[in-house]
Amino acid sequence: MRKYIDLSRDITHDMPVHPYDDRVRLYQDKFLDKDKYVNYRLEIGMHSGTHIDTPMHLTDRETYINEIPIERFVGRGVLLDVRNEDPIKFKNEYADIVDDNAIVLLFTSHSDKYGTKEYYTEQPVIDNTLAEFFVRKNIKMLGMDLPSPDNYPFEIHKILFDNNILIIENLTNLSELMDVKDFEVLAPPLRIRAEAAMARVIAVIDI
Amino acid sequence: MRKYIDLSRDITHDMPVHPYDDRVRLYQDKFLDKDKYVNYRLEIGMHSGTHIDTPMHLTDRETYINEIPIERFVGRGVLLDVRNEDPIKFKNEYADIVDDNAIVLLFTSHSDKYGTKEYYTEQPVIDNTLAEFFVRKNIKMLGMDLPSPDNYPFEIHKILFDNNILIIENLTNLSELMDVKDFEVLAPPLRIRAEAAMARVIAVIDI
Repeated sequence: MRKYIDLSRDITHDMPVHPYDDRVRLYQDKFLDKDKYVNYRLEIGMHSGTHIDTPMHLTDRETYINEIPIERFVGRGVLLDVRNEDPIKFKNEYADIVDDNAIVLLFTSHSDKYGTKEYYTEQPVIDNTLAEFFVRKNIKMLGMDLPSPDNYPFEIHKILFDNNILIIENLTNLSELMDVKDFEVLAPPLRIRAEAAMARVIAVIDI
Repeated sequence: MRKYIDLSRDITHDMPVHPYDDRVRLYQDKFLDKDKYVNYRLEIGMHSGTHIDTPMHLTDRETYINEIPIERFVGRGVLLDVRNEDPIKFKNEYADIVDDNAIVLLFTSHSDKYGTKEYYTEQPVIDNTLAEFFVRKNIKMLGMDLPSPDNYPFEIHKILFDNNILIIENLTNLSELMDVKDFEVLAPPLRIRAEAAMARVIAVIDI
Protein backbone atom coordinates (compact mmCIF):
# COMPACT_ATOMS: atom_id res chain seq x y z
CA MET A 1 0.00 0.00 0.00
CA ARG A 2 1.07 3.53 -0.72
CA LYS A 3 0.16 6.85 0.79
CA TYR A 4 0.37 10.04 -1.27
CA ILE A 5 0.94 13.46 0.26
CA ASP A 6 0.22 16.38 -2.02
CA LEU A 7 2.86 19.08 -1.57
CA SER A 8 1.38 21.42 -4.21
CA ARG A 9 -0.49 24.72 -3.96
CA ASP A 10 -3.80 25.35 -5.70
CA ILE A 11 -3.73 27.44 -8.89
CA THR A 12 -6.57 29.97 -8.61
CA HIS A 13 -7.55 33.38 -9.95
CA ASP A 14 -5.40 36.10 -8.33
CA MET A 15 -3.48 33.59 -6.23
CA PRO A 16 -0.46 34.95 -4.32
CA VAL A 17 2.51 35.69 -6.60
CA HIS A 18 5.96 37.18 -6.07
CA PRO A 19 5.98 41.02 -6.16
CA TYR A 20 8.11 40.83 -9.37
CA ASP A 21 5.49 38.72 -11.15
CA ASP A 22 2.31 39.56 -13.01
CA ARG A 23 -0.97 38.32 -11.62
CA VAL A 24 -2.50 34.94 -12.40
CA ARG A 25 -5.79 35.09 -14.27
CA LEU A 26 -8.09 32.05 -14.30
CA TYR A 27 -11.52 32.54 -15.82
CA GLN A 28 -14.37 30.55 -17.30
CA ASP A 29 -14.89 31.28 -21.01
CA LYS A 30 -17.29 28.46 -21.99
CA PHE A 31 -20.53 27.69 -20.14
CA LEU A 32 -22.72 24.60 -20.04
CA ASP A 33 -26.03 26.41 -20.72
CA LYS A 34 -24.77 28.57 -23.58
CA ASP A 35 -21.87 26.59 -25.11
CA LYS A 36 -22.79 23.02 -24.03
CA TYR A 37 -19.43 22.59 -22.33
CA VAL A 38 -17.32 24.16 -19.62
CA ASN A 39 -13.85 25.57 -20.26
CA TYR A 40 -11.50 27.63 -18.15
CA ARG A 41 -8.55 29.59 -19.45
CA LEU A 42 -5.38 30.37 -17.50
CA GLU A 43 -2.85 33.19 -17.83
CA ILE A 44 0.16 32.51 -15.68
CA GLY A 45 3.89 33.20 -15.26
CA MET A 46 6.16 30.20 -14.78
CA HIS A 47 7.07 31.11 -11.18
CA SER A 48 3.53 31.11 -9.79
CA GLY A 49 2.52 28.59 -7.16
CA THR A 50 4.41 25.32 -6.79
CA HIS A 51 6.99 25.26 -9.59
CA ILE A 52 10.48 24.19 -10.59
CA ASP A 53 13.28 26.59 -11.56
CA THR A 54 16.04 25.49 -13.93
CA PRO A 55 19.40 27.22 -14.59
CA MET A 56 17.90 29.08 -17.58
CA HIS A 57 15.97 31.28 -15.11
CA LEU A 58 19.10 33.18 -14.05
CA THR A 59 21.99 32.06 -16.27
CA ASP A 60 22.70 32.02 -20.00
CA ARG A 61 22.14 28.28 -20.28
CA GLU A 62 19.46 27.49 -22.83
CA THR A 63 18.11 24.12 -21.83
CA TYR A 64 14.35 24.51 -21.62
CA ILE A 65 12.55 22.57 -18.88
CA ASN A 66 10.67 20.43 -21.45
CA GLU A 67 14.06 19.10 -22.61
CA ILE A 68 15.01 17.75 -19.17
CA PRO A 69 14.22 14.03 -18.78
CA ILE A 70 11.70 12.77 -16.22
CA GLU A 71 14.42 11.01 -14.20
CA ARG A 72 15.65 14.42 -13.00
CA PHE A 73 12.31 15.11 -11.31
CA VAL A 74 11.85 11.92 -9.27
CA GLY A 75 13.95 10.47 -6.50
CA ARG A 76 14.45 9.60 -2.87
CA GLY A 77 13.29 12.39 -0.58
CA VAL A 78 15.05 13.75 2.50
CA LEU A 79 13.30 16.25 4.80
CA LEU A 80 15.39 18.68 6.86
CA ASP A 81 13.61 20.38 9.75
CA VAL A 82 14.93 23.97 9.64
CA ARG A 83 12.11 25.74 11.45
CA ASN A 84 13.00 29.03 13.19
CA GLU A 85 16.35 29.36 11.40
CA ASP A 86 17.35 32.45 9.41
CA PRO A 87 19.73 32.18 7.69
CA ILE A 88 19.41 28.43 7.30
CA LYS A 89 22.95 27.08 7.79
CA PHE A 90 24.76 23.80 7.32
CA LYS A 91 24.81 21.47 10.35
CA ASN A 92 27.17 18.51 10.73
CA GLU A 93 24.31 16.08 11.24
CA TYR A 94 23.19 16.65 7.64
CA ALA A 95 26.29 14.84 6.35
CA ASP A 96 24.82 11.50 7.44
CA ILE A 97 21.28 11.94 6.12
CA VAL A 98 21.77 13.65 2.75
CA ASP A 99 23.22 11.58 -0.06
CA ASP A 100 23.95 11.73 -3.77
CA ASN A 101 20.95 12.27 -5.97
CA ALA A 102 18.58 12.95 -3.09
CA ILE A 103 15.71 15.39 -3.45
CA VAL A 104 16.09 17.50 -0.31
CA LEU A 105 13.06 19.31 1.11
CA LEU A 106 13.57 22.15 3.59
CA PHE A 107 10.73 22.42 6.09
CA THR A 108 10.78 26.01 7.39
CA SER A 109 7.04 26.31 8.28
CA HIS A 110 7.13 29.71 6.56
CA SER A 111 4.33 28.32 4.37
CA ASP A 112 2.02 29.19 7.30
CA LYS A 113 2.32 32.80 6.07
CA TYR A 114 1.15 31.95 2.53
CA GLY A 115 -1.50 34.47 1.50
CA THR A 116 -0.05 37.30 3.61
CA LYS A 117 2.36 39.99 2.42
CA GLU A 118 5.00 38.64 4.83
CA TYR A 119 5.23 35.41 2.85
CA TYR A 120 7.26 37.32 0.25
CA THR A 121 8.86 40.05 2.40
CA GLU A 122 9.97 38.24 5.56
CA GLN A 123 11.13 34.85 4.38
CA PRO A 124 14.17 33.11 5.83
CA VAL A 125 17.07 32.58 3.41
CA ILE A 126 19.57 29.79 2.83
CA ASP A 127 23.19 30.34 3.86
CA ASN A 128 26.12 29.67 1.49
CA THR A 129 27.41 26.93 3.82
CA LEU A 130 24.26 24.89 3.20
CA ALA A 131 24.13 25.52 -0.56
CA GLU A 132 27.77 24.47 -0.90
CA PHE A 133 27.09 21.31 1.10
CA PHE A 134 24.30 20.39 -1.31
CA VAL A 135 26.70 20.93 -4.21
CA ARG A 136 29.33 18.68 -2.62
CA LYS A 137 26.68 16.02 -2.06
CA ASN A 138 25.48 16.35 -5.67
CA ILE A 139 21.80 16.41 -4.77
CA LYS A 140 19.25 16.28 -7.59
CA MET A 141 16.78 18.93 -6.48
CA LEU A 142 16.22 21.26 -3.54
CA GLY A 143 12.62 21.95 -2.57
CA MET A 144 11.25 24.30 0.09
CA ASP A 145 8.08 25.80 1.59
CA LEU A 146 9.45 29.25 0.66
CA PRO A 147 8.97 31.51 -2.35
CA SER A 148 12.74 31.46 -2.94
CA PRO A 149 15.96 30.26 -1.26
CA ASP A 150 17.31 33.85 -1.30
CA ASN A 151 16.72 37.49 -2.29
CA TYR A 152 18.32 39.67 -4.99
CA PRO A 153 21.05 39.17 -6.34
CA PHE A 154 20.12 35.48 -5.89
CA GLU A 155 23.54 34.06 -5.02
CA ILE A 156 22.09 30.82 -3.64
CA HIS A 157 20.06 30.23 -6.79
CA LYS A 158 23.28 30.69 -8.79
CA ILE A 159 25.39 28.32 -6.66
CA LEU A 160 22.74 25.64 -7.14
CA PHE A 161 22.21 26.36 -10.86
CA ASP A 162 25.95 26.37 -11.60
CA ASN A 163 25.92 22.79 -10.35
CA ASN A 164 22.75 21.84 -12.15
CA ILE A 165 20.64 21.46 -9.01
CA LEU A 166 16.99 22.26 -9.75
CA ILE A 167 14.88 24.23 -7.25
CA ILE A 168 11.27 23.57 -6.19
CA GLU A 169 9.53 26.60 -4.67
CA ASN A 170 6.24 27.21 -2.82
CA LEU A 171 5.75 23.72 -1.42
CA THR A 172 3.14 23.05 1.26
CA ASN A 173 2.17 20.26 3.70
CA LEU A 174 5.81 19.45 4.54
CA SER A 175 4.81 19.01 8.20
CA GLU A 176 3.16 15.74 7.15
CA LEU A 177 6.61 14.31 6.34
CA MET A 178 8.09 15.11 9.77
CA ASP A 179 7.94 11.57 11.15
CA VAL A 180 8.30 9.72 7.86
CA LYS A 181 11.52 7.77 7.52
CA ASP A 182 11.48 6.89 3.83
CA PHE A 183 9.64 8.62 1.04
CA GLU A 184 9.95 9.30 -2.64
CA VAL A 185 9.35 12.64 -4.35
CA LEU A 186 7.53 12.83 -7.68
CA ALA A 187 7.78 16.34 -9.12
CA PRO A 188 7.19 16.21 -12.87
CA PRO A 189 6.62 19.75 -14.19
CA LEU A 190 4.39 20.54 -17.14
CA ARG A 191 6.35 19.97 -20.34
CA ILE A 192 6.47 23.69 -21.22
CA ARG A 193 9.13 25.19 -23.50
CA ALA A 194 10.22 27.65 -20.82
CA GLU A 195 12.86 28.34 -18.17
CA ALA A 196 10.68 26.90 -15.38
CA ALA A 197 7.24 25.34 -15.04
CA MET A 198 4.44 24.69 -12.61
CA ALA A 199 4.53 21.16 -11.17
CA ARG A 200 2.35 18.82 -9.17
CA VAL A 201 4.71 17.71 -6.42
CA ILE A 202 3.87 14.57 -4.45
CA ALA A 203 5.52 12.55 -1.69
CA VAL A 204 4.96 8.80 -1.90
CA ILE A 205 5.23 6.63 1.20
CA ASP A 206 5.15 2.83 1.29
CA ILE A 207 3.01 1.79 4.24
CA MET B 1 15.57 -0.05 -11.36
CA ARG B 2 12.79 1.85 -13.04
CA LYS B 3 12.26 3.11 -16.53
CA TYR B 4 10.08 6.15 -17.20
CA ILE B 5 8.24 6.73 -20.47
CA ASP B 6 6.94 10.23 -20.99
CA LEU B 7 3.48 10.12 -22.57
CA SER B 8 3.04 13.92 -22.61
CA ARG B 9 3.06 16.49 -25.41
CA ASP B 10 5.17 19.64 -25.31
CA ILE B 11 3.42 22.90 -24.47
CA THR B 12 4.63 25.50 -26.98
CA HIS B 13 3.51 28.76 -28.57
CA ASP B 14 0.70 28.12 -31.08
CA MET B 15 0.75 24.37 -30.44
CA PRO B 16 -2.06 22.37 -32.07
CA VAL B 17 -5.41 22.84 -30.34
CA HIS B 18 -8.94 21.63 -30.97
CA PRO B 19 -10.86 23.78 -33.49
CA TYR B 20 -13.25 24.80 -30.65
CA ASP B 21 -10.38 26.13 -28.54
CA ASP B 22 -8.50 29.41 -28.49
CA ARG B 23 -4.81 29.39 -29.32
CA VAL B 24 -2.05 28.81 -26.80
CA ARG B 25 0.27 31.76 -26.29
CA LEU B 26 3.70 31.25 -24.69
CA TYR B 27 6.04 34.23 -24.70
CA GLN B 28 9.10 35.51 -22.89
CA ASP B 29 8.41 38.67 -20.89
CA LYS B 30 11.60 38.96 -18.82
CA PHE B 31 15.10 38.88 -20.28
CA LEU B 32 18.50 38.18 -18.73
CA ASP B 33 20.26 41.25 -20.18
CA LYS B 34 17.52 43.77 -19.36
CA ASP B 35 15.72 42.29 -16.32
CA LYS B 36 18.47 40.04 -14.88
CA TYR B 37 16.19 37.01 -15.08
CA VAL B 38 14.21 35.00 -17.59
CA ASN B 39 10.46 34.51 -17.35
CA TYR B 40 7.90 33.07 -19.73
CA ARG B 41 4.18 33.58 -19.51
CA LEU B 42 1.55 31.14 -20.71
CA GLU B 43 -2.06 31.69 -21.85
CA ILE B 44 -3.82 28.37 -22.27
CA GLY B 45 -7.20 26.66 -22.24
CA MET B 46 -7.55 23.57 -20.07
CA HIS B 47 -8.01 21.19 -23.04
CA SER B 48 -4.71 21.99 -24.75
CA GLY B 49 -2.06 19.30 -25.14
CA THR B 50 -1.99 16.33 -22.77
CA HIS B 51 -4.73 16.93 -20.22
CA ILE B 52 -7.38 15.31 -18.04
CA ASP B 53 -11.12 15.91 -18.38
CA THR B 54 -13.43 15.57 -15.39
CA PRO B 55 -17.26 15.32 -15.36
CA MET B 56 -17.52 19.09 -14.84
CA HIS B 57 -16.45 19.58 -18.47
CA LEU B 58 -19.81 18.38 -19.83
CA THR B 59 -22.17 17.85 -16.92
CA ASP B 60 -23.55 19.98 -14.10
CA ARG B 61 -21.30 18.39 -11.49
CA GLU B 62 -19.21 21.00 -9.74
CA THR B 63 -16.20 19.13 -8.44
CA TYR B 64 -13.15 21.05 -9.66
CA ILE B 65 -10.11 19.02 -10.66
CA ASN B 66 -8.01 20.48 -7.81
CA GLU B 67 -10.48 18.88 -5.36
CA ILE B 68 -9.90 15.35 -6.67
CA PRO B 69 -7.32 13.41 -4.61
CA ILE B 70 -4.02 12.24 -6.09
CA GLU B 71 -5.04 8.58 -5.75
CA ARG B 72 -7.48 9.03 -8.64
CA PHE B 73 -4.63 9.90 -11.01
CA VAL B 74 -2.26 6.98 -10.40
CA GLY B 75 -2.74 3.28 -10.93
CA ARG B 76 -1.94 0.11 -12.77
CA GLY B 77 -1.82 0.67 -16.53
CA VAL B 78 -3.34 -1.55 -19.25
CA LEU B 79 -2.58 -0.86 -22.92
CA LEU B 80 -5.11 -1.92 -25.57
CA ASP B 81 -3.82 -2.08 -29.15
CA VAL B 82 -6.70 -0.68 -31.21
CA ARG B 83 -4.80 0.45 -34.29
CA ASN B 84 -6.78 0.65 -37.53
CA GLU B 85 -10.16 0.42 -35.78
CA ASP B 86 -12.96 2.96 -36.27
CA PRO B 87 -15.19 2.81 -34.37
CA ILE B 88 -13.18 1.17 -31.61
CA LYS B 89 -15.38 -1.63 -30.30
CA PHE B 90 -15.42 -4.02 -27.36
CA LYS B 91 -13.68 -7.37 -27.90
CA ASN B 92 -14.14 -10.41 -25.68
CA GLU B 93 -10.42 -10.70 -25.00
CA TYR B 94 -10.51 -7.39 -23.08
CA ALA B 95 -12.53 -9.03 -20.30
CA ASP B 96 -9.42 -10.88 -19.11
CA ILE B 97 -6.93 -8.02 -19.23
CA VAL B 98 -8.89 -5.04 -17.90
CA ASP B 99 -9.73 -5.00 -14.23
CA ASP B 100 -11.21 -2.76 -11.57
CA ASN B 101 -9.42 0.49 -11.00
CA ALA B 102 -7.12 0.07 -14.01
CA ILE B 103 -5.96 3.06 -16.01
CA VAL B 104 -6.65 1.91 -19.57
CA LEU B 105 -4.67 3.44 -22.44
CA LEU B 106 -5.97 3.09 -26.01
CA PHE B 107 -3.15 2.93 -28.56
CA THR B 108 -4.67 3.99 -31.90
CA SER B 109 -1.47 5.40 -33.50
CA HIS B 110 -3.59 8.40 -34.59
CA SER B 111 -1.00 10.48 -32.70
CA ASP B 112 1.16 10.12 -35.84
CA LYS B 113 -1.12 12.79 -37.34
CA TYR B 114 -0.48 15.28 -34.53
CA GLY B 115 0.33 18.66 -36.08
CA THR B 116 -1.85 18.09 -39.15
CA LYS B 117 -5.46 19.21 -39.61
CA GLU B 118 -6.51 15.54 -39.86
CA TYR B 119 -5.56 14.98 -36.22
CA TYR B 120 -8.76 16.79 -35.26
CA THR B 121 -10.98 16.06 -38.27
CA GLU B 122 -10.35 12.37 -39.04
CA GLN B 123 -9.94 10.74 -35.67
CA PRO B 124 -11.35 7.31 -34.86
CA VAL B 125 -14.05 7.23 -32.17
CA ILE B 126 -14.95 4.87 -29.35
CA ASP B 127 -18.03 2.71 -29.68
CA ASN B 128 -20.70 2.50 -26.93
CA THR B 129 -19.92 -1.21 -26.45
CA LEU B 130 -16.41 -0.38 -25.31
CA ALA B 131 -17.40 2.58 -23.11
CA GLU B 132 -20.06 0.45 -21.40
CA PHE B 133 -17.51 -2.32 -20.82
CA PHE B 134 -15.20 0.18 -19.07
CA VAL B 135 -18.12 1.26 -16.89
CA ARG B 136 -18.90 -2.36 -15.93
CA LYS B 137 -15.24 -2.91 -15.08
CA ASN B 138 -15.18 0.31 -13.03
CA ILE B 139 -11.90 1.54 -14.46
CA LYS B 140 -10.28 4.62 -12.93
CA MET B 141 -9.25 6.54 -16.04
CA LEU B 142 -9.30 6.11 -19.81
CA GLY B 143 -6.38 7.60 -21.74
CA MET B 144 -5.80 7.77 -25.50
CA ASP B 145 -3.54 9.14 -28.22
CA LEU B 146 -6.57 10.99 -29.62
CA PRO B 147 -7.92 14.51 -29.13
CA SER B 148 -11.21 13.02 -27.87
CA PRO B 149 -12.98 9.67 -27.55
CA ASP B 150 -15.90 10.99 -29.67
CA ASN B 151 -17.39 13.97 -31.53
CA TYR B 152 -20.36 16.20 -30.77
CA PRO B 153 -22.73 15.49 -28.90
CA PHE B 154 -20.04 13.61 -26.91
CA GLU B 155 -22.05 10.57 -25.85
CA ILE B 156 -18.95 8.57 -24.95
CA HIS B 157 -17.62 11.38 -22.75
CA LYS B 158 -20.99 11.40 -20.99
CA ILE B 159 -21.16 7.63 -20.44
CA LEU B 160 -17.71 7.77 -18.84
CA PHE B 161 -18.41 10.93 -16.81
CA ASP B 162 -21.74 9.61 -15.51
CA ASN B 163 -19.70 6.80 -14.00
CA ASN B 164 -16.93 9.05 -12.74
CA ILE B 165 -14.29 7.75 -15.15
CA LEU B 166 -11.75 10.48 -15.93
CA ILE B 167 -10.41 10.91 -19.49
CA ILE B 168 -6.79 11.59 -20.55
CA GLU B 169 -6.48 13.09 -24.04
CA ASN B 170 -3.61 13.79 -26.46
CA LEU B 171 -1.18 11.16 -25.20
CA THR B 172 1.93 10.26 -27.20
CA ASN B 173 4.62 7.54 -27.23
CA LEU B 174 2.13 4.75 -26.51
CA SER B 175 3.98 2.52 -29.00
CA GLU B 176 6.73 2.23 -26.39
CA LEU B 177 4.35 0.31 -24.13
CA MET B 178 3.44 -2.31 -26.76
CA ASP B 179 5.59 -5.11 -25.38
CA VAL B 180 5.48 -4.07 -21.74
CA LYS B 181 3.65 -6.49 -19.48
CA ASP B 182 3.32 -4.45 -16.30
CA PHE B 183 3.42 -0.72 -15.90
CA GLU B 184 2.05 1.99 -13.70
CA VAL B 185 0.55 5.27 -14.88
CA LEU B 186 1.28 8.52 -13.04
CA ALA B 187 -0.93 11.31 -14.35
CA PRO B 188 -1.19 14.06 -11.76
CA PRO B 189 -2.72 17.18 -13.34
CA LEU B 190 -1.84 20.69 -12.25
CA ARG B 191 -3.89 21.60 -9.19
CA ILE B 192 -6.01 24.17 -11.06
CA ARG B 193 -9.48 25.24 -9.89
CA ALA B 194 -11.03 24.26 -13.23
CA GLU B 195 -13.04 21.55 -15.00
CA ALA B 196 -9.89 19.94 -16.46
CA ALA B 197 -6.15 20.53 -16.37
CA MET B 198 -2.94 19.90 -18.24
CA ALA B 199 -1.00 16.95 -16.85
CA ARG B 200 2.43 15.37 -17.14
CA VAL B 201 1.57 11.74 -17.83
CA ILE B 202 4.23 9.08 -17.27
CA ALA B 203 4.41 5.30 -17.51
CA VAL B 204 6.68 3.65 -14.94
CA ILE B 205 8.16 0.22 -15.60
CA ASP B 206 10.10 -1.88 -13.09
CA ILE B 207 13.07 -3.39 -14.93
